[in-house]
Amino acid sequence: MILVNGDAVTVVDALDRGLAYGDGIFRTLRTQDRQPVWWADHFAKLVADCAALNLDCPDEALLRSEVCRVSEAGQGIVKIQITRGAGTRGYAPPVDQRGNRIVLSAPLPPHAQTGTPDGIVARWCTLRLARQPRLAGIKHLNRLENVLARAEWDDPAIFEGLLCDDRGEVIGGVMSNVFWAKDGTLFTPELSECGVAGVTRARLLRAAARRNIPARIGRWLPDAILAADEVMICNSVIGVRRITRLDDRTWLPVGWTITLNNALHEEVD
Amino acid sequence: MILVNGDAVTVVDALDRGLAYGDGIFRTLRTQDRQPVWWADHFAKLVADCAALNLDCPDEALLRSEVCRVSEAGQGIVKIQITRGAGTRGYAPPVDQRGNRIVLSAPLPPHAQTGTPDGIVARWCTLRLARQPRLAGIKHLNRLENVLARAEWDDPAIFEGLLCDDRGEVIGGVMSNVFWAKDGTLFTPELSECGVAGVTRARLLRAAARRNIPARIGRWLPDAILAADEVMICNSVIGVRRITRLDDRTWLPVGWTITLNNALHEEVD
Repeated sequence: MILVNGDAVTVVDALDRGLAYGDGIFRTLRTQDRQPVWWADHFAKLVADCAALNLDCPDEALLRSEVCRVSEAGQGIVKIQITRGAGTRGYAPPVDQRGNRIVLSAPLPPHAQTGTPDGIVARWCTLRLARQPRLAGIKHLNRLENVLARAEWDDPAIFEGLLCDDRGEVIGGVMSNVFWAKDGTLFTPELSECGVAGVTRARLLRAAARRNIPARIGRWLPDAILAADEVMICNSVIGVRRITRLDDRTWLPVGWTITLNNALHEEVD
Repeated sequence: MILVNGDAVTVVDALDRGLAYGDGIFRTLRTQDRQPVWWADHFAKLVADCAALNLDCPDEALLRSEVCRVSEAGQGIVKIQITRGAGTRGYAPPVDQRGNRIVLSAPLPPHAQTGTPDGIVARWCTLRLARQPRLAGIKHLNRLENVLARAEWDDPAIFEGLLCDDRGEVIGGVMSNVFWAKDGTLFTPELSECGVAGVTRARLLRAAARRNIPARIGRWLPDAILAADEVMICNSVIGVRRITRLDDRTWLPVGWTITLNNALHEEVD
């Protein structure tokens, strides 16, 4: 089901600036029994991303009610898109900005179902992410880099691609954030120049702090990942998944993925 | 008037990947008496940009007929958007890709009317363009950098903002390419890492070659522009315009803008 500004339609204005320029942001979240999971985190991120692009953020109660309205029974996925709305020709944001909000549901993908093995196969992408501090961290609609990176493989056995920036430093997965553990410390890339700072990443960092697990945010080359004890990707749909193979490198589990998945869910919304 | 895949509607599929990811390209061109101006150049660029993103390019005769169909009497503007079409959730391009094409018309903006003064006022933008060789030169739908740069000013007297990349090298205008002349030579930035390589820029470079005007494509810092004899911006809608003032620096005309505007139009489509 799709709601556009609350109306059950399947189309948007052809002049929408989300389409013209990618001028908007989005969220993908899980739903359980027609309620959004981790709503407080998702809405807080939506507010922050809207503020970063000077977009009007929808009212929380209204948006949440639309998420519930489109969501399906049991487990599911809801995607929220907020755009700057229809625009006259030209890049200048309209003076009288009227954003569009698109809320749509989808079934939970197979790889996110309960009981799916926690391990996944990944590869390094050759595309290098450009560094743009003004857009870094934001889940905006300019995602051609992700599209090009994802198009680098079509082997269904490969679940995710890892990306570095143009300096060769690790940033994250095409659709996920990356964490790794080494000698009892958790590591994840700093995202002030590119990448998306996801809600699950933020929850994991909070969980690590709660459990007194040392966590470091910084800049590392791929070697740091290859030397790790356990490497994981995460997002709001799949939770935490362990990388069992990354091109030629393989890992056996040492317990981090289970620990972090538990930690991720112990925090009440 | 708007045509979506040939139908006179004003809406597009809410699942269009142009909206979801900016997964598409566009063109803006002038029309004269319901015919596209510089069509051969525009279509060639459309073919090249589609190829760069592995998008299906529409049939030339079909697209041209739609441009003619939407265009208005006299002088006007037509915008063409080509997207990868509706997608299932996720970045992977659909196996059975069915692109959407959106063709829409608009009146010629006031600043593009015949008889408008050839001089414009510009400013330097503070935003720095990120360097992404995989997307450089393409007029794709990921234009948040342009939106943010254009939002840096609201003084209607300022017509254009000039942009540098993260190394401080000049790339072009928010909606235009930039040229400058110094001691008889024409200069324009190399666009292999960012920026849009526009049709008017290509026509100007061809015109310079035809007229034996030395032209250099390369990397320069803003100082090179400040030291120029005449500085110009160009695009398909405005042609060539002289910068009369760039923040504090002013220029008097020395003839380049008139020469290049004439050269731009002497080539038959």
